[in-house]
Amino acid sequence: MVVAVIGVGLIGGSIGLAARERLGATVRGFDPGDGVLEAARERGAIHEACATAAEAVAGADTAFVAAPVGDLPAAVGEALGAAGPECVVSDAGSTKRDIVAAHDDPRFVGGHPLAGAETAGVEHARADLFEGATWYLTPTDTTSGILYERLHRAIAEFGAGPAAIDAATHDRLLANVSHLPHVLANVLVSQAAQTLAGENERLPATGPSFRDATRVAGAPSAIWTDIYLSNRDALTAGIDAIVERLTEVRQALTRGEATTVTEWNEAAAADRRRLLEAQLAGGPLFELRASVPNRPGVIAELALELGRAGVNITDMALYPAADMSDGGVALRIAGEHAAARTEELLVGLGLHVARA
Amino acid sequence: MVVAVIGVGLIGGSIGLAARERLGATVRGFDPGDGVLEAARERGAIHEACATAAEAVAGADTAFVAAPVGDLPAAVGEALGAAGPECVVSDAGSTKRDIVAAHDDPRFVGGHPLAGAETAGVEHARADLFEGATWYLTPTDTTSGILYERLHRAIAEFGAGPAAIDAATHDRLLANVSHLPHVLANVLVSQAAQTLAGENERLPATGPSFRDATRVAGAPSAIWTDIYLSNRDALTAGIDAIVERLTEVRQALTRGEATTVTEWNEAAAADRRRLLEAQLAGGPLFELRASVPNRPGVIAELALELGRAGVNITDMALYPAADMSDGGVALRIAGEHAAARTEELLVGLGLHVARA
Repeated sequence: MVVAVIGVGLIGGSIGLAARERLGATVRGFDPGDGVLEAARERGAIHEACATAAEAVAGADTAFVAAPVGDLPAAVGEALGAAGPECVVSDAGSTKRDIVAAHDDPRFVGGHPLAGAETAGVEHARADLFEGATWYLTPTDTTSGILYERLHRAIAEFGAGPAAIDAATHDRLLANVSHLPHVLANVLVSQAAQTLAGENERLPATGPSFRDATRVAGAPSAIWTDIYLSNRDALTAGIDAIVERLTEVRQALTRGEATTVTEWNEAAAADRRRLLEAQLAGGPLFELRASVPNRPGVIAELALELGRAGVNITDMALYPAADMSDGGVALRIAGEHAAARTEELLVGLGLHVARA
Repeated sequence: MVVAVIGVGLIGGSIGLAARERLGATVRGFDPGDGVLEAARERGAIHEACATAAEAVAGADTAFVAAPVGDLPAAVGEALGAAGPECVVSDAGSTKRDIVAAHDDPRFVGGHPLAGAETAGVEHARADLFEGATWYLTPTDTTSGILYERLHRAIAEFGAGPAAIDAATHDRLLANVSHLPHVLANVLVSQAAQTLAGENERLPATGPSFRDATRVAGAPSAIWTDIYLSNRDALTAGIDAIVERLTEVRQALTRGEATTVTEWNEAAAADRRRLLEAQLAGGPLFELRASVPNRPGVIAELALELGRAGVNITDMALYPAADMSDGGVALRIAGEHAAARTEELLVGLGLHVARA
């Protein structure tokens, strides 16, 4: 197996290390930065340094483009131009609408591993960076099911949890759970710095609470300016909602309404509990097999349907029939409840389902 | 040495454990909650369970009142009423103006250890809870220097860094480095919960970033409603400043101003770096001795002057002259620069200073 990595920073380098260690792949890399390819080869993230993106992608089975969000449409286009008909091309950008709108090639699947955005550089790359992390995939109705399945399996082998989602939902969701926390960390750290300087005080040793709240403040601009701008509509909507919530609690504070403040605080406690409980949902693995018609888009449709219902596919394998007219898909799903829901949804899609 | 602890929750219980282990003190406790004193005794946080606050304080050398902020003025008043003339009384409240305004007794010194606010209950108490934490003290011009020094030493023995600060500065500062981060964590977690529910998505496994940003969301209302309300003027001013900063970045996003967004992000990175570097400032210990006139308020004045200049007193000891007409104070200060600055400030206060 040959894996191409375009852009060998923290994410690209970690993909290279994981592909080498966990897929036994030969990794070919390209990066336009000075000395990056050499550093990547020293770190073991790539076997072969290529002079161009096209050279890295030629002959690859899977290509990952890990470039800044603003460069992605062109970089993915270049990779698709050089890739063979059986090569799946994905990216690792933190926003997905622009890149998905730019390429409806059946070989392209948008991707976004939720890992490592607060450091940068191949020197921090590691094979286990994606262990336990959600890795969003944004298949569309033009996506090849066979290529989608290959990508899904590679990502699961990296130790990540692949989760299908449509690009617009992804961007709204990330605006709220990632981009907005980064914006708030920035304004909080600058506000604290200004206050402390005005009082000639230093930051107290507070235990980790202020540090935690501002850990992602000032994340690398080379990555984040693009992310903020490419998701600016969802992000400004998130900012507006935060301002509205702040205005509400401000009013309760000004009026000295203890009951309202308590209710507001208890609601936050309940929201946090629910979010974390939902995140930890899991359980024993169940295997479901469904026969699927061999037509384009069916795997993407199935993955998105389960994704929308909040079901994560822990593992996925395609079994084409001998005459290729028809095929089967095996899905491994964690938890009895999620497995039952999956069965229901697959039947709803008109598929015949059996438990293995 | 006898230490009284009024309110034996996480903070009071940890004070009890630290006083026992590190000061070799006998600890007498009172708490109005059902079964709390029994649990505290089982945990070893107190030697003796008392039926009233007055009983716990009678005969004590040092009394800590660790009650909710709203109950503090009355609880500290009760402790002062029962305390002997040589007993120092302090509290552990997260806001300081109200309590300091309520009691100008020379035996009272407001206090605030920055530790453990996100859990509660004596079952989580530990002797090392304050290790490395800033512990603010708010002496005034009526504070007894001898009693202030005893309190300072006890707190340093607990492993904390005592830092003198005036009550108003404390409250503005805490509004920005603690109360505001709690408010933002609350609005962020509720905003994310609403978005995820609307999309029927669960919280992705993001590594620790969203968890960190919202770790303090929904902190115990029994403590936090009082904190928010007692500091509401400083807190609403902080909220207004945050909203203004959000409005600015929103405008740059809407206009697609990449340069402005980058500058804003780089400023946050620089602010964070500066805050953390200032926090870590330290170095080898220097001992300075100054002769001080034996008049009320001089130690508080000295501690506040150093506090305002950002100098932390690692250790402090008073040496009264034999005839008690005059005395000396020995200060241990970390870092050559801070020691030189201390010397300058003490000379500025009209004191004669020698390096030991």
